[in-house]
Amino acid sequence: MSVAGLKSRLLAPGPVEVPPAVLEALARPVVHHRSPEFRALFQRVRERLAEVAMVPGEDVFVVTGSGTAGFEAGLLAAVPAGGTVLSLSAGKFGERWAQMSRRFGFRVVELRADWGRALDPDRVRQALREAGPVEAVTTTHSETSTGVLHDVEAIARAVGEEAPDALVLVDAVTSLAAAELRPREWGLDAVFAGSQKGVMVPPGLAFAYLSPRAWERSDALAARGALAPSYYLDLRRERARQREGQTAATPAVSLVAGLDIALGMLLEEGMDAVWRRRERLNEALLQAGEAVGLARFAERPSPAVAALRTPEGVGAPDLIARLGTAGIRIGAGQDAAKPFLLRPSVLGYCDRFDVITLAAALEEAMRGAGRDVAFGAGPAGALRALAP
Amino acid sequence: MSVAGLKSRLLAPGPVEVPPAVLEALARPVVHHRSPEFRALFQRVRERLAEVAMVPGEDVFVVTGSGTAGFEAGLLAAVPAGGTVLSLSAGKFGERWAQMSRRFGFRVVELRADWGRALDPDRVRQALREAGPVEAVTTTHSETSTGVLHDVEAIARAVGEEAPDALVLVDAVTSLAAAELRPREWGLDAVFAGSQKGVMVPPGLAFAYLSPRAWERSDALAARGALAPSYYLDLRRERARQREGQTAATPAVSLVAGLDIALGMLLEEGMDAVWRRRERLNEALLQAGEAVGLARFAERPSPAVAALRTPEGVGAPDLIARLGTAGIRIGAGQDAAKPFLLRPSVLGYCDRFDVITLAAALEEAMRGAGRDVAFGAGPAGALRALAP
Repeated sequence: MSVAGLKSRLLAPGPVEVPPAVLEALARPVVHHRSPEFRALFQRVRERLAEVAMVPGEDVFVVTGSGTAGFEAGLLAAVPAGGTVLSLSAGKFGERWAQMSRRFGFRVVELRADWGRALDPDRVRQALREAGPVEAVTTTHSETSTGVLHDVEAIARAVGEEAPDALVLVDAVTSLAAAELRPREWGLDAVFAGSQKGVMVPPGLAFAYLSPRAWERSDALAARGALAPSYYLDLRRERARQREGQTAATPAVSLVAGLDIALGMLLEEGMDAVWRRRERLNEALLQAGEAVGLARFAERPSPAVAALRTPEGVGAPDLIARLGTAGIRIGAGQDAAKPFLLRPSVLGYCDRFDVITLAAALEEAMRGAGRDVAFGAGPAGALRALAP
Repeated sequence: MSVAGLKSRLLAPGPVEVPPAVLEALARPVVHHRSPEFRALFQRVRERLAEVAMVPGEDVFVVTGSGTAGFEAGLLAAVPAGGTVLSLSAGKFGERWAQMSRRFGFRVVELRADWGRALDPDRVRQALREAGPVEAVTTTHSETSTGVLHDVEAIARAVGEEAPDALVLVDAVTSLAAAELRPREWGLDAVFAGSQKGVMVPPGLAFAYLSPRAWERSDALAARGALAPSYYLDLRRERARQREGQTAATPAVSLVAGLDIALGMLLEEGMDAVWRRRERLNEALLQAGEAVGLARFAERPSPAVAALRTPEGVGAPDLIARLGTAGIRIGAGQDAAKPFLLRPSVLGYCDRFDVITLAAALEEAMRGAGRDVAFGAGPAGALRALAP
């Protein structure tokens, strides 16, 4: 597929480029999931994952599946069958959680914001006042389809004041290990993520955290048979097994071995440093985009993805095709945003020179699309933003 | 973990040792699951998988998850909510499917046979006569916990005669690419498997096949809203996407790359040759076990695992610990079979010298446990069985 003079670069908001040490771990001989070797590995992964998720000492469960599987597992474990969910959505993933909740028979009250806008905590308050009793509020943290980082801290505070019994369930698929995320301090009751984003592992593992309050709720609901049925994605079964260093079903052991390495790298850098680095790189990427004639799309940008809007007369699919010819894969706009949205990302194993690369590539693509862009404008925009 | 003079050998009935070429594929840079590269890879995998499953040209869906996830996906897609399932069980996995079916609210009629015995098609007929209308019959093909290969051809024939409308759903987790399996000719309506068994890939992918009749049933049930809800494991969503070379949720792309290589290796050898080889090696392993004082446990042995019973006074956990000291990991007995059952397996990337290795190791372990076994009795038993 590749030729010597054309490097392939994966610079999308997931799956992301993975560190070589993680790829090496994937290629190790398979270990049996019931062996002492795997148990030791898995216990270490559990500890590290809880530290990365800022809930040290608590359980963050690892499920073999995509991020969607993690969300489903948490939703079914914490919300009573037929219960009411206030679904906050301002992009494709918010909409997905509303759709999933409906599919499982929950009553869904949807509060939407336009794509590109941040969810307003005051509107959440108002929606809760109007909705009647609500068992859970679901929201995305980093909405990958629009590049917006929703203020889940303020949203959780609003929920806590207006509907203190409602659980706050957060899709952190592209915010874990990308943006500041403090489930305990912010009062989040459930957090879900996936391996192929900020954690820098290939896709195939989902992570699910439930707060002590959410587990109490789950236990009480289970005791009176009030949870919707689940089996493969039953977090209650997983809790019993994973606390023993096991999993209920056979896990993707190779991906777990890679995860161990990646988590070690993140903790070595330190989560504060990881968040700062990613925010800085993403902001530089946004400024590079602006320097070549693109416009930032997200009201409150997530460090996971630089959502950039094309100017009138330039189609996003055209620019994406030009980047593809250069060996660079970025994220495309989704659904109605397809014609005008670009989603390059430095969420993976990336440093500032990947930002420069994207800046140069975006500049070339805009020129290719007929725009008059000064040579070096893209990298200059990035370098200016990156200057100490 | 390993030292130079002690090799690690994974000789359990899954996860299994994986060919080096598959491990290499796992370590390749991650490709985006929406890229043309992945689409081409996935289409090839789909074609190859259908050939390995003896349903060329049909859909065998790939789901990120364990074999249990595959079974759940098929069960929920094909059986109406609250419907009646005749669950055939003669071991741990049969029991798991009964438990899962109950969990999802199906009415479960269970027909059990003792661990180690093969399911009797005449008892299936009788159970169907007594059960009243039944929407589906679930069974294992290779029951990994007991080493029995159930005669699903005869069982499906019995169901077809006694309850022609009932679908036959088959757990082929350890029989796919291990034992003869012909869903079309045998009238199987659904077949489920996993990546970490005869297919020789690390765990993390499940496979699910539904027959045209099962899909017709599913479509009719879905049209009148009669299916139990599912989302992540919704095969109907997967059908729509996978026919386009996509998946509904982000798949474990690295495992799919490994799967491509492994399927190519199996098809290069040819499925008839794969089945014959595995049956021959497993039979030699059983004879080696008998030659050192163990007894075959399975009435109708599956080529996926050599279930061997220890003699009075020798504990299986003791022998397993001795093999462990020698670097060899086999399967232990499960549940009530733990004290007396050994489950070595040459289901993975194995040839006849792995059988000889196991024969020698079992011989040493029996001697270590105080049994008087002639030097070389184990390998002799294997070599005699393998002689042309």
